[in-house]
Amino acid sequence: MPIHEFHTRRRIEFADTDMAGIVHFARFFVFMETAEHEFLRSLGREVHFEDDGRHIGWPRVKASCEYFSPVRLGEILDIRVEVKRKGRSSMTYRFHFRCGERRIAVGEITSICCALPTPFPDAEAKLTAVPIPAVLADALEEAPDES
Amino acid sequence: MPIHEFHTRRRIEFADTDMAGIVHFARFFVFMETAEHEFLRSLGREVHFEDDGRHIGWPRVKASCEYFSPVRLGEILDIRVEVKRKGRSSMTYRFHFRCGERRIAVGEITSICCALPTPFPDAEAKLTAVPIPAVLADALEEAPDES
Amino acid sequence: MPIHEFHTRRRIEFADTDMAGIVHFARFFVFMETAEHEFLRSLGREVHFEDDGRHIGWPRVKASCEYFSPVRLGEILDIRVEVKRKGRSSMTYRFHFRCGERRIAVGEITSICCALPTPFPDAEAKLTAVPIPAVLADALEEAPDES
Amino acid sequence: MPIHEFHTRRRIEFADTDMAGIVHFARFFVFMETAEHEFLRSLGREVHFEDDGRHIGWPRVKASCEYFSPVRLGEILDIRVEVKRKGRSSMTYRFHFRCGERRIAVGEITSICCALPTPFPDAEAKLTAVPIPAVLADALEEAPDES
Repeated sequence: MPIHEFHTRRRIEFADTDMAGIVHFARFFVFMETAEHEFLRSLGREVHFEDDGRHIGWPRVKASCEYFSPVRLGEILDIRVEVKRKGRSSMTYRFHFRCGERRIAVGEITSICCALPTPFPDAEAKLTAVPIPAVLADALEEAPDES
Repeated sequence: MPIHEFHTRRRIEFADTDMAGIVHFARFFVFMETAEHEFLRSLGREVHFEDDGRHIGWPRVKASCEYFSPVRLGEILDIRVEVKRKGRSSMTYRFHFRCGERRIAVGEITSICCALPTPFPDAEAKLTAVPIPAVLADALEEAPDES
Repeated sequence: MPIHEFHTRRRIEFADTDMAGIVHFARFFVFMETAEHEFLRSLGREVHFEDDGRHIGWPRVKASCEYFSPVRLGEILDIRVEVKRKGRSSMTYRFHFRCGERRIAVGEITSICCALPTPFPDAEAKLTAVPIPAVLADALEEAPDES
Repeated sequence: MPIHEFHTRRRIEFADTDMAGIVHFARFFVFMETAEHEFLRSLGREVHFEDDGRHIGWPRVKASCEYFSPVRLGEILDIRVEVKRKGRSSMTYRFHFRCGERRIAVGEITSICCALPTPFPDAEAKLTAVPIPAVLADALEEAPDES
């Protein structure tokens, strides 16, 4: 049965904050990425893995976030990850951040499934878009629309 | 004469990279923010400043970035900042990243001009949207549309 | 009964890595800080708290780390925090990082207990060293020496 | 003529700060690393370079910092890098941070010169300590002692 969402939590650390006393806006992109990776790990996949002798990676092509309310040191973010769009080679995840009753932020990341010639690419390595390996493509489905 | 763009450069540091050998996608949001602040500084304004006895800050409401080509350690990013939209209380900047001939990324940040009750807000501080102070509003104008 | 150590774990995130394919050495200082804060939280204290009407903070005066073996994405760090030295106003924690059988790193942070005039200091705020509040000083004791 | 020191500057960015309103202590290790790399670049060397067909890298074995005074957004750090110790395979740099008349911090990083089997090591890559390549070893000398 393919699934379309995943839940995780994360406590705000001191180094996440800035001099405005709240979490720095760029940190949410790291929070999204780590939640995405936990999602993959929950499916038995690491972020980078071998498929049919190829090393698979997910370079980002787009990332965005809307901020509704600040979060502070020690607070716990509830993060819901949704499969927003599953293409042949691309994947868009949506991330809903809440803190108790407060809606904190909503973000998205779109990545392209790429084969890399070596485990870690050298400067000249060419990335080639490839179809999402079946082991992942079959495990995930798009979430139903919501308002 | 109001202006609508600003140019700056930035060399990629080792700590900007990730295990894929390229700049981590979240770092671009820090690059944007710092370029925005250099823009303000070029106008004689710090990011946080006093206006009429109020402390002015710019909480972010939206941030996004599209990625076209990776950048690597030691490379120099050319960053062009444009005023994309100047509202009464909000400001949207657009950021064009190039590296020589390569188009690297395009991003946007939208912020709301807010008055803060104290220089650094305590946990209970309420942010209040205020009109952009004339000293800034008069110095900036929206950039002409481009494709 | 005062205690002298605390254990926690942390999984390596993608954004912790650098282009060498391993965790960036500066990240260990963030790992130490967060482990220290978890230690305090386990004692019922936040990092910043009010004591007798004063806001208490812990500016760092010294930090160091020795690195024995690299750590990589997805690995789990076991972190043991020890009270290495408890002074009247200062506290030194030692942090032992392991990853399964591998010894990864050992670090230390020394901080001074300070009273801050306001919850978040403005640029002119003077920090004043104060005795460690009894609620913490009584809960912690120095760890026995070890080789 | 071998040299033993290098000077650079760096302006504090918003993302360098934390909720205490000052630069986060872990950021100084990034500042040190980048100054070290600028030093190497001033000698015509990148951080990672090819020497005799081998890829050369500098894993850190030790890093430390003492903090004397906080730094804030927009301030400019003057950074002096010294060769504190030049071994056969190891190098220790000392970093002096000032901000105008204020002494901010002093730090050190010790690294081992290693040959890496590929430009970017895979997870199994073994690091092998090698003598510092002559092109660097001949360009640097230890700084005279100072108090």
